[in-house]
Amino acid sequence: MTRFLSDNAASVHPAVWDALKSADSVQSPYDGDDLSQRLDEAFGALFGREVAVLWVATGTAANCLALSAMVPPHGAVVCHREAHIEMDEGGAPGFFLHGAKLLLADGEGARITPDAIRAVIDPIRDDVHQVQPHAISVTQANEYGRCYRPTELAAIGALAKERGLGFHVDGARFANAVAHLGCAPIEAVGPAQALSFGCVKNGGMNAEAIVFFDPALADLVRYRRKRSGHLQSKGRFLAAQLLAMVEGDVWLDNARRANAAASAIVAGAADRLLHPVEANEVFMRLSAPEREALRKQGYHFYDWGSDAARFVASWDSDPAAAEALGKAIAAL
Amino acid sequence: MTRFLSDNAASVHPAVWDALKSADSVQSPYDGDDLSQRLDEAFGALFGREVAVLWVATGTAANCLALSAMVPPHGAVVCHREAHIEMDEGGAPGFFLHGAKLLLADGEGARITPDAIRAVIDPIRDDVHQVQPHAISVTQANEYGRCYRPTELAAIGALAKERGLGFHVDGARFANAVAHLGCAPIEAVGPAQALSFGCVKNGGMNAEAIVFFDPALADLVRYRRKRSGHLQSKGRFLAAQLLAMVEGDVWLDNARRANAAASAIVAGAADRLLHPVEANEVFMRLSAPEREALRKQGYHFYDWGSDAARFVASWDSDPAAAEALGKAIAAL
Amino acid sequence: MTRFLSDNAASVHPAVWDALKSADSVQSPYDGDDLSQRLDEAFGALFGREVAVLWVATGTAANCLALSAMVPPHGAVVCHREAHIEMDEGGAPGFFLHGAKLLLADGEGARITPDAIRAVIDPIRDDVHQVQPHAISVTQANEYGRCYRPTELAAIGALAKERGLGFHVDGARFANAVAHLGCAPIEAVGPAQALSFGCVKNGGMNAEAIVFFDPALADLVRYRRKRSGHLQSKGRFLAAQLLAMVEGDVWLDNARRANAAASAIVAGAADRLLHPVEANEVFMRLSAPEREALRKQGYHFYDWGSDAARFVASWDSDPAAAEALGKAIAAL
Amino acid sequence: MTRFLSDNAASVHPAVWDALKSADSVQSPYDGDDLSQRLDEAFGALFGREVAVLWVATGTAANCLALSAMVPPHGAVVCHREAHIEMDEGGAPGFFLHGAKLLLADGEGARITPDAIRAVIDPIRDDVHQVQPHAISVTQANEYGRCYRPTELAAIGALAKERGLGFHVDGARFANAVAHLGCAPIEAVGPAQALSFGCVKNGGMNAEAIVFFDPALADLVRYRRKRSGHLQSKGRFLAAQLLAMVEGDVWLDNARRANAAASAIVAGAADRLLHPVEANEVFMRLSAPEREALRKQGYHFYDWGSDAARFVASWDSDPAAAEALGKAIAAL
Repeated sequence: MTRFLSDNAASVHPAVWDALKSADSVQSPYDGDDLSQRLDEAFGALFGREVAVLWVATGTAANCLALSAMVPPHGAVVCHREAHIEMDEGGAPGFFLHGAKLLLADGEGARITPDAIRAVIDPIRDDVHQVQPHAISVTQANEYGRCYRPTELAAIGALAKERGLGFHVDGARFANAVAHLGCAPIEAVGPAQALSFGCVKNGGMNAEAIVFFDPALADLVRYRRKRSGHLQSKGRFLAAQLLAMVEGDVWLDNARRANAAASAIVAGAADRLLHPVEANEVFMRLSAPEREALRKQGYHFYDWGSDAARFVASWDSDPAAAEALGKAIAAL
Repeated sequence: MTRFLSDNAASVHPAVWDALKSADSVQSPYDGDDLSQRLDEAFGALFGREVAVLWVATGTAANCLALSAMVPPHGAVVCHREAHIEMDEGGAPGFFLHGAKLLLADGEGARITPDAIRAVIDPIRDDVHQVQPHAISVTQANEYGRCYRPTELAAIGALAKERGLGFHVDGARFANAVAHLGCAPIEAVGPAQALSFGCVKNGGMNAEAIVFFDPALADLVRYRRKRSGHLQSKGRFLAAQLLAMVEGDVWLDNARRANAAASAIVAGAADRLLHPVEANEVFMRLSAPEREALRKQGYHFYDWGSDAARFVASWDSDPAAAEALGKAIAAL
Repeated sequence: MTRFLSDNAASVHPAVWDALKSADSVQSPYDGDDLSQRLDEAFGALFGREVAVLWVATGTAANCLALSAMVPPHGAVVCHREAHIEMDEGGAPGFFLHGAKLLLADGEGARITPDAIRAVIDPIRDDVHQVQPHAISVTQANEYGRCYRPTELAAIGALAKERGLGFHVDGARFANAVAHLGCAPIEAVGPAQALSFGCVKNGGMNAEAIVFFDPALADLVRYRRKRSGHLQSKGRFLAAQLLAMVEGDVWLDNARRANAAASAIVAGAADRLLHPVEANEVFMRLSAPEREALRKQGYHFYDWGSDAARFVASWDSDPAAAEALGKAIAAL
Repeated sequence: MTRFLSDNAASVHPAVWDALKSADSVQSPYDGDDLSQRLDEAFGALFGREVAVLWVATGTAANCLALSAMVPPHGAVVCHREAHIEMDEGGAPGFFLHGAKLLLADGEGARITPDAIRAVIDPIRDDVHQVQPHAISVTQANEYGRCYRPTELAAIGALAKERGLGFHVDGARFANAVAHLGCAPIEAVGPAQALSFGCVKNGGMNAEAIVFFDPALADLVRYRRKRSGHLQSKGRFLAAQLLAMVEGDVWLDNARRANAAASAIVAGAADRLLHPVEANEVFMRLSAPEREALRKQGYHFYDWGSDAARFVASWDSDPAAAEALGKAIAAL
């Protein structure tokens, strides 16, 4: 396996397959089945908090449904200008939030800080001519494979609280962040009201969890999930995937494996990195001839602009291949 | 298996499981995989037409995305007042169509006719004060398990054409309709621009197809599918389900099995029927004590108002159980 | 003046002209001017309540903005199936409420009762598949020139409160209702959270008031007014119109004059009425030849279906012409 | 008159008052009156083109309705990051365009060029994950009182055509631009499909025109104008204002007067300018003590950040006061 294109297309973990098969027996439709009913407890145990959990099929739906409970149509969400919700969701926030706006903050490595957020929201006059912020969204681990430290999340959460803003974490690669940070899962979320907990990139087939730390928000989102066509009738198959991940250590083991493969890729060429490797993504300066040379050796990856490449490892990346790739890069 | 509650929660067909497993090998993400790319051809063969096909996870998404390509936000869709899009989709048409309206027509057995449609649209003044119709939607087989004959669809399609309206068929149970009508699949669609082709109720896990007979509409909907969070990254698993259904006869065999079970239920008690049985749903007059008696014998089904019951058979209904239920009803 | 087509196109009252001219001197833009700032007090005095008042240019905007503060995008408004918001606002509720639904109740004379409302909302299952009601809207005086008595409004308001629903009154012809009922203005509103207070049909040029009896709703609507393009920069001219109406008795005098003209029209032919005349609109059985005869005498009015006519009197209707028309009808 | 705060709150021109009074006689409601019917011809004569013209009450409504005919909900509009539609319309584009996006281009003096537009749209991958541009919007004269030359508009229009994008001109201060450029009105629009033609800031009360150079777009917008609550029942009063402006030279005379006043303000202190003065707005470096000094002399204006001031002249600015202000500044 010499593909390091994307964790998006990785295979499904055996434990997930087993759970899917076990879920096949007939059950109540939608989310009335026993598996869906077990989600709150399973994620509650993971985070040591009372939570309300809804499954959906995609990270885009998870992010936008979560935000839809925090932001009125006339409001706005503050996020980094390279956030997934801004760059890669086809305008889904505009759809789910009925035209609410994204306010774009700057920050190194696609990370935002309280200062960067303030730089965006402080100049907004508190009048009806300008769209007012209602929530902050950060990505953990983010679009460049970077993580927020618990103290950083606490600081953003404190600002959110001070300004009366909601706080959402896009955790499409949340497991990779926890694996990297080595902290308790709740510390990697910080004081957010909602987390999009990724499963698809980490060995799932087509289930993500929206974890609400404020359960009242879940009650709103139940309606909006149906209204957006995301309430599946055989929801037990989504719940099964999520439970297979979090009722054991599959979610964390898979993430550790992916992170380790990413580290192996970078092992001998840290000086080439565009961003520190804090999850399963590697962005490296590599000239066109260098990329060509690697591809001739059989490696698959994306160009990143004209002078760099992106490698993404996944739970099923072959450690030997990653190591070999690392050596091949070092040898360039 | 004595459950006749809903086909929504049925088990997944073995051929679908096989196809899912086969799809596990790494592929291009989203709909760039070989399986997704094969859909147009497979459905084109089924219908004997050039078609463009998109997968989505739910019938609600299929219906509303299809309609979103035909109806502007200031327009309306004509449908029966008991249509699924009006009654059971949590307001999804209002969401996907940005506030467009449903105009509700009457008709026996949840079926609409050109006359019924005209009764709704002819009184609408052609001015900006009233919302103008832009499409017609019918359900095949419909909410009461009734089918439209090819000539009936042709007549509705002719009216649609005459008035410049789009024509959409909600085929959540399309296979059951074809099985009942015994006609070519294309005849069971009529001159529609788009069909929501059901798979989940018929042995699938979580895939439905939007079949566009006007491929230009598909190009619009590709954007709207992403924007509504319905573009799954491992789309190959949805394509696999659909191909497993339609590249063989699984879709039709399953529907025939479900229809046969429904017929068996009704065999000895046709005089109790609220609606002719033309698919896999049975609506029967049954008093509360009668329903109680059946439940004591172990049968599961829903009450339908105070004096009737609804039985839904599915592809995996036990024929013996259906027959036994039929006898039990006849014996009441 | 023998035109009884519509109060929509009536002339502007001299007191309104005077107020407009007086407002010409330069002022703060938007609603920062002294006149706009006086609205809360003026309407507060009228209703004997603390209110928050926003001007807008049209009744459609007033209705939809008021409702937008009560109904989330995934919710619904209960109204009569012939309500203006359903029949004649070009789908504006779907736009302003982001796809929320209108649930249509029946009732004689376009009036709804608690029973009629219950008949609509009680069958709605409290689940995510069906759109849940969030508000009730009634029209006072309504589309057929009918009024709600204070006790009727109290009963609807009690039901709204019991079910946790908002309550909105479309008062495009509110003055005509108060003139007819002879009660205090507040009694003609009942326990509503918001009233669209009409001015345009009653001698204004282009200003309506949204009167919020729950001032917190006004704060939301301020943002939505701007966002819908309804915050005019020279808002002082809208405020001036409203103040000219309600700081004296112009609003009530004008309505009385219009109601009196309507009564004169019907004086000798009450047996022809389709609806009791409780405001300034008259719906009368008149055959085609009869209508032809009246038109030959110079009267302008609309056909109402094939066997009737609608006459609408306005503040500037000529009493003599109305009386003469009444005699002409009696003489048919 | 020593107020140079905003042209938004200026008084209404006598010719407009006369036209309003003349429009008072009863007419057909909405836009069925003779005045509204004359708009196409009057603006057609002004621009030397076949046009379709709709009145609305505000510039925000004009801009967003015009764009709504060019941009689908899943699309985007390219504009300058300081464009009025981005900065000062309370999120109205998100509302009227159902969540479509604004793509923000850079450019000196709030002006955009083909290069600046390409810098925004060329990096957008032509796939469903990224929102695709559907229109370009420029402001003429713009937010800093700057104008686009005819050749510049032609170049932007050529790019729009090449890329299949709509082209909209926000002309809230269009008259000021024409007065400054000294060109034919059509040259100041360039090859746009729609122009928001401002009247309110230029001596009107509450009417703006949307001028469609592609009349087919107007037919769509008629529905959307009603649906957004912007179809006034006494539309004759809006049409009257517009006709009073453009059937004579009032629109241009007023703009020349405002521009001249702005020039007078800047006469002796061109070195203080932040932006060249090409319309009726003056942005000048003035320290806090300097601003204080001017205010003590009785001048009203807004601070512009901490080191500058904004002066806006209007049609009714007193030339002597403008000249005196100019001298006062020069004397600082």
